[in-house]
Amino acid sequence: MKQAVFFMLNDYADWEGAYLSSKLNQSDDWIVKTVSINSEITSIGGFRTTVDYQLNDISDDVDLLILIGGNSWSIENDKLKELLAKRLKSGLPTGSICGSVDYLARNGLLTGYKHTGNSQYLWKDYDAYTNKNDFLMEQAVWDDNLVTANGTAALDFTNLVIKMLHLLSDKEANQATDLYKLGFYKFCDKYGNPFA
Amino acid sequence: MKQAVFFMLNDYADWEGAYLSSKLNQSDDWIVKTVSINSEITSIGGFRTTVDYQLNDISDDVDLLILIGGNSWSIENDKLKELLAKRLKSGLPTGSICGSVDYLARNGLLTGYKHTGNSQYLWKDYDAYTNKNDFLMEQAVWDDNLVTANGTAALDFTNLVIKMLHLLSDKEANQATDLYKLGFYKFCDKYGNPFA
Repeated sequence: MKQAVFFMLNDYADWEGAYLSSKLNQSDDWIVKTVSINSEITSIGGFRTTVDYQLNDISDDVDLLILIGGNSWSIENDKLKELLAKRLKSGLPTGSICGSVDYLARNGLLTGYKHTGNSQYLWKDYDAYTNKNDFLMEQAVWDDNLVTANGTAALDFTNLVIKMLHLLSDKEANQATDLYKLGFYKFCDKYGNPFA
Repeated sequence: MKQAVFFMLNDYADWEGAYLSSKLNQSDDWIVKTVSINSEITSIGGFRTTVDYQLNDISDDVDLLILIGGNSWSIENDKLKELLAKRLKSGLPTGSICGSVDYLARNGLLTGYKHTGNSQYLWKDYDAYTNKNDFLMEQAVWDDNLVTANGTAALDFTNLVIKMLHLLSDKEANQATDLYKLGFYKFCDKYGNPFA
């Protein structure tokens, strides 16, 4: 069983990991675990989450590491920075959405990757962010072993991470996210009723 | 401060309450609390949630009660049934999405309301479900003090609950949910860049 580890901080964005975690945790090959720098964190929506791991408990080579956005990504954390630098260099699948991409930019961890994020404007004073031309104005971007997305792109992020992992074929991945993007009735118009 | 109480069971659907809880908990007038019949529950996506209340701790007149869907709604629970019957009769705002609407149908709690849900087919053997003609094939339905939705309709559900509560004007509510429905770039095309 492969482990998908979701890293979150206090005031994390409830919606950003919701589709992806549920998709992965329902598959036969993946189990979702949560990690933070506190043992209990509270989401923006007020849900109190007890995480499975502390940052020191996980190694840099977990099968998938997902960074969920939120309001606490101004943190300095050398352990996290090192862990991310190592796994990105090793080609291990990593996903980052919303505020967590700001952290990658500030720590020079987007270097070498086409990417997106909430807004490049937020990164203008980050000396370590040296590849401005690699920012794409898209909802989510997949380059090599890194998927990045803005905070309104929970489903696009899910779609690209699923494709990066080869969890489903591209066609199946699009269909899986279209169910929620289009909603049930428009999904049926496009693909037929999956329950008929 | 008004309380929005989110009721969930084990194996609850991560995405269904995510947009609504974060919208409410960020407003000046509302605070989100969670309730279940267990003290710790795990979402479909593997997130371990410690709830604020047990069912016996809450009264039937909480300001807003939201039932989140998931895989455990085959429960029998008289306390929950009574509480819902009382608050629906009293005209208190209530929302129900996905599997939790099955519970309402099975317990005759949709009587008198236009409604929707995952599929009416699932309710064909429910004697207490007596108003089949009130089912609307829409993503989400708001009638009086009840909003119902299918499990692919987290944003439509959020939209109608916000309108039911008069948290925002209709125009503002549509704009708030369009940010996530359309995604940032298409949202900017439609409304202009909110950060420019």
